[in-house]
Amino acid sequence: MQELPSSVDPARFALCADAIAEAARELALLGWTPATSSNFSMRVNDELAAITISGRDKGRLGREDIMLVDMAGHAVGTHARPSAETGLHTQAYRRLPHAQVVLHTHSRTQSVASRLFAREGVVRLEGWELQKAITGYTTHESVLDIPVFPNTQYMPELVARIDAWLDAGKPLHAYLIDGHGIYTWGADMAEARRHLEALEFLLACELDLRRFSA
Amino acid sequence: MQELPSSVDPARFALCADAIAEAARELALLGWTPATSSNFSMRVNDELAAITISGRDKGRLGREDIMLVDMAGHAVGTHARPSAETGLHTQAYRRLPHAQVVLHTHSRTQSVASRLFAREGVVRLEGWELQKAITGYTTHESVLDIPVFPNTQYMPELVARIDAWLDAGKPLHAYLIDGHGIYTWGADMAEARRHLEALEFLLACELDLRRFSA
Amino acid sequence: MQELPSSVDPARFALCADAIAEAARELALLGWTPATSSNFSMRVNDELAAITISGRDKGRLGREDIMLVDMAGHAVGTHARPSAETGLHTQAYRRLPHAQVVLHTHSRTQSVASRLFAREGVVRLEGWELQKAITGYTTHESVLDIPVFPNTQYMPELVARIDAWLDAGKPLHAYLIDGHGIYTWGADMAEARRHLEALEFLLACELDLRRFSA
Amino acid sequence: MQELPSSVDPARFALCADAIAEAARELALLGWTPATSSNFSMRVNDELAAITISGRDKGRLGREDIMLVDMAGHAVGTHARPSAETGLHTQAYRRLPHAQVVLHTHSRTQSVASRLFAREGVVRLEGWELQKAITGYTTHESVLDIPVFPNTQYMPELVARIDAWLDAGKPLHAYLIDGHGIYTWGADMAEARRHLEALEFLLACELDLRRFSA
Repeated sequence: MQELPSSVDPARFALCADAIAEAARELALLGWTPATSSNFSMRVNDELAAITISGRDKGRLGREDIMLVDMAGHAVGTHARPSAETGLHTQAYRRLPHAQVVLHTHSRTQSVASRLFAREGVVRLEGWELQKAITGYTTHESVLDIPVFPNTQYMPELVARIDAWLDAGKPLHAYLIDGHGIYTWGADMAEARRHLEALEFLLACELDLRRFSA
Repeated sequence: MQELPSSVDPARFALCADAIAEAARELALLGWTPATSSNFSMRVNDELAAITISGRDKGRLGREDIMLVDMAGHAVGTHARPSAETGLHTQAYRRLPHAQVVLHTHSRTQSVASRLFAREGVVRLEGWELQKAITGYTTHESVLDIPVFPNTQYMPELVARIDAWLDAGKPLHAYLIDGHGIYTWGADMAEARRHLEALEFLLACELDLRRFSA
Repeated sequence: MQELPSSVDPARFALCADAIAEAARELALLGWTPATSSNFSMRVNDELAAITISGRDKGRLGREDIMLVDMAGHAVGTHARPSAETGLHTQAYRRLPHAQVVLHTHSRTQSVASRLFAREGVVRLEGWELQKAITGYTTHESVLDIPVFPNTQYMPELVARIDAWLDAGKPLHAYLIDGHGIYTWGADMAEARRHLEALEFLLACELDLRRFSA
Repeated sequence: MQELPSSVDPARFALCADAIAEAARELALLGWTPATSSNFSMRVNDELAAITISGRDKGRLGREDIMLVDMAGHAVGTHARPSAETGLHTQAYRRLPHAQVVLHTHSRTQSVASRLFAREGVVRLEGWELQKAITGYTTHESVLDIPVFPNTQYMPELVARIDAWLDAGKPLHAYLIDGHGIYTWGADMAEARRHLEALEFLLACELDLRRFSA
């Protein structure tokens, strides 16, 4: 049972939890959350985020599968265990003020692309009309770089690499983790979903093109 | 809110809007309209067409997501913004008197084929029984050429290339835009859908064959 | 409207028509009948078969989309036009006494495999456990040959090639037509569906294996 | 009709049969049980297991399609025929005390991977985050070996090979049979499903990677 701190309006929590659970169910139907993987969160207020509880089947989520964490990634008002990767969600909320929703999925395309581009450290997307689905992009003539970070079970290492990328002032709309999956975000659920859907599509197209030029 | 000009029978507009919304929902389910891309239209009368409003999720369209434009592509009776590519729809209605419905989608197959065949400027389809699904084709021994035009964010440039193709008297049943998607049309929704479905299938088969002959 | 000859029990015709329409709807959902292609039939009695009327959307078939033909392929009791390929269905009923149902589909796998193996004239399947889904096969150590015949719009030519194969005493469980699709059959709808599903699967696996050995 | 021995609580049998039938329907929807292939079982008590009756369409299973077998694989309380591969299920229950559910499917990915890795005799999975979905694995830096055994219609031969692998003390979470499919299991239905889903995903990713490095 989630016990809400007085700073959280129950209606706001319910809205966040329902939006996360609905998105998770729809993304699970696409096969992007295999074997209880993937996690999803939404900013509740300046101090707290709602996030999926670890290990649940993402195709059958309800409100009771969502918990609160503070911006250091600690559980708030519950004994449930947040996902091991909670620190990547809270980092996004700390570093990217416009991010209200963070989505992390594990599709086959995302996993394979992350392995294939791990050595280069980046997937460079160019010449695709659908790059315009990323907020701020207005032409296919732009360049959209998605970094690929090495995987690790020690989250602070990943957090440091992402901090370094941001500290260097490079644009960041999403990132891949090698052999693992993608993280992306948006100013609301619709934008985060649009970013995720566009990136899945673009990575799949890029892999297809490589098959022919190989 | 769409305000109908007196020249438009409300029942006719409703019929067009519902047909467009239904087709959009079904094509979205196939994954051919990723990240709010794609647009669809239907000729309402000699002066006007109904077309999808820009940026809406094509999987959740209703009648209120459809607007009127004149044959120059200007909004009629609404402040909604038509798609940036409206000019390609109205060009089809001006140049191809038999076209009553225009469909533009962005499937992965369409996007990848457009990139792969961009240099040749055309996808040549031969020897497939399903070419007979294109009105006017009666045998697999025919040749079906689908041109691939360079992408641009400046619509008049694209319109001019398509005009040039038509002015040269070459047959045109559909065209691809590089890195982008396909445009096709028909004398009614059923024919336009059949053309789109057949072309998606033929492009996918052609890509598969290339994988083996590579 | 179908007018039934006195030799046909209306209940028997209804049963055949419903079974055909249901199978067509389910196969259309799998994407194996693109753009109104494909056709399906069932033996009604020694002289007649029920078959899909030409050009209908296979995903939306009802009883009224099914007609009767005699074993020479002529329409019986209706002005509807049977499929151009009706002669291949009636040949199966004439030559293969155990065949009660004939299914013809156009999946992408079937179309691509037919092009790829057209020169060899046969797809040879060996070493797959699922060969046992074909009636009469009891081990993966058997050899299952699916001939590939050249496509033609002139049916008697195709009928003659199939007759020649049968006259040579070679086993025939299904055949492909180049650039076109597959024909298979069974002693009832369940067996015909099982054969079709197994062959689609085996052709897809065979294509996948070729991709790696290429 | 299944007649239950006095040692079996009818409610326990009903629970097992319903869980098996539900899993079978869901896996069939994914296309992993083509042409009536595949079989599924659950341990009822120390002496008996519930298992799918041979040859039924896995997409339409109900409680009446499930039967009891003893740990030697003989039918109990029914004249129905258990699957030819029942011996592989009962071997798992005899040798792996934690296994409560055994799932065997035939997806295209599983079949193709089994052929491709048959000569090496094993699929080695390394560097994938999703390896953590297998109980006992806590990092992508582990190695997960899935053996590939030669196919045979003579079950005791397969049983002996699997016994030999276990007797050698090698870890076994699943195995492939060449040209055939996969076997995996779990301490309950949820764990067995998670293992199956993760392995299908990992095999598909591994095949994709091979396409690029070929």
